[in-house]
Amino acid sequence: MCTLDVLNIKRKMSFPVSIYVLSVWLGFLCVMFVCLWSGTWRGGFAWDGSFLQFNWHPVLMVTSLVVLYGNAILLYRVPLTWSRWWCKRAHAGLLFVAMVLSVLGVCAAFDFHTANNIPHLYSLHSWTGISTVALFTLQWFVGLCAFLLPWTPLAFRAHLKPLHIWMGIAIFILSLITSLSGINEKLLLTLNGRNGSNTKPYATLPAEALFANSFGIAVVIFGLLVLKLLFGQKWKNPESENETDRPLLTDAR
Amino acid sequence: MCTLDVLNIKRKMSFPVSIYVLSVWLGFLCVMFVCLWSGTWRGGFAWDGSFLQFNWHPVLMVTSLVVLYGNAILLYRVPLTWSRWWCKRAHAGLLFVAMVLSVLGVCAAFDFHTANNIPHLYSLHSWTGISTVALFTLQWFVGLCAFLLPWTPLAFRAHLKPLHIWMGIAIFILSLITSLSGINEKLLLTLNGRNGSNTKPYATLPAEALFANSFGIAVVIFGLLVLKLLFGQKWKNPESENETDRPLLTDAR
Repeated sequence: MCTLDVLNIKRKMSFPVSIYVLSVWLGFLCVMFVCLWSGTWRGGFAWDGSFLQFNWHPVLMVTSLVVLYGNAILLYRVPLTWSRWWCKRAHAGLLFVAMVLSVLGVCAAFDFHTANNIPHLYSLHSWTGISTVALFTLQWFVGLCAFLLPWTPLAFRAHLKPLHIWMGIAIFILSLITSLSGINEKLLLTLNGRNGSNTKPYATLPAEALFANSFGIAVVIFGLLVLKLLFGQKWKNPESENETDRPLLTDAR
Repeated sequence: MCTLDVLNIKRKMSFPVSIYVLSVWLGFLCVMFVCLWSGTWRGGFAWDGSFLQFNWHPVLMVTSLVVLYGNAILLYRVPLTWSRWWCKRAHAGLLFVAMVLSVLGVCAAFDFHTANNIPHLYSLHSWTGISTVALFTLQWFVGLCAFLLPWTPLAFRAHLKPLHIWMGIAIFILSLITSLSGINEKLLLTLNGRNGSNTKPYATLPAEALFANSFGIAVVIFGLLVLKLLFGQKWKNPESENETDRPLLTDAR
């Protein structure tokens, strides 16, 4: 048995499966929470410039930039029996889906603003949000060119890898920050008599506020669990340490 | 020259001083931003139950839970010539000041709410905020008992250390999340014709909104720089690896 096999077995034994299972369930819970909030409490979905179109925004952003993104970055920690070849493709593929959904989510908000003469990008939530989506898109394309296409010099890959990892973590933390300020903003604007809503004010903590605040807390706990698993050095796949040593697509040739 | 000396010299050489200096300056900038926002744009300070009392809240929370806290957790990364003895005391001392200021900051908000018949703890910002302060206070007292008092069993210290480190990071991320949603909330409530303010609405992005949004972005960049420095494994003080092997106060006896 080679050293890598022994290290992999040790990693599998020490990986906290309970925390991982909890994070997966919390991810599902977050998607369920945001779908119920938008779909039931806020009246459902449409793509007609109304508030029903805006409802796509939280659903798409949380599903993409929090839940799918969190699971995509965890792929390098979960002790799967997949080869590096499959792990990289699953990572890039999951993030591609996340990127498409996040761009759609931004479009839902922008279209709604345009249809209702609301200025774009004025709140701090929108400033951090647009930065997150822009950095994520840039990171995905740079990652594709550097780590998936075969003609990138190996020295460049090796130099880029630490920055790619750190940018990935920073984008996830930015997503958490943006999600929480977004939920807070939506509740402040919707429950305080604006946006044509006749609910009780936020300060009286009606059932919707309790529901959406709990959703926000679930997002935070999910994020912190993902980061906890991500920073466990001993759960790092030893094979992935040398992944910049050779181009990836040559494996498939 | 012993192995530890060589490791420390290597660490000092590789530590990115430019990023550290930038983070220190950004910390000062954040304190300056929040003081100017509350002190000038929002009318200054008082402790009389008015909005001037609430102005202490952002100043005290950002100064304590973001800037002081960030610098306190970085103490274990910056290649100081201090001994472990001084490093631990500076860490605990700085966090004690941060804890006192954060509790004062919470009191400023609660007193203001009570004086103006505003319910406490209704927004998602307040839920994450109170959790952050409660976890921080618990973490400080547990840290004091476990790592500073000499009668804690060494085995307990060794078991607690990874949890203490992770909780510290989680509390810092919670602080960033809470700060950003707090700045967003304050602008939404203040600039949209509530709270007796006659400024232009937030959506028209008046000068105050631009200023406070930029302050929020500075907080995010400061937080991400601190976390970047914190996660650099090669900058870890090799001496601190064994810090749970012996009680700290026996050093001073």
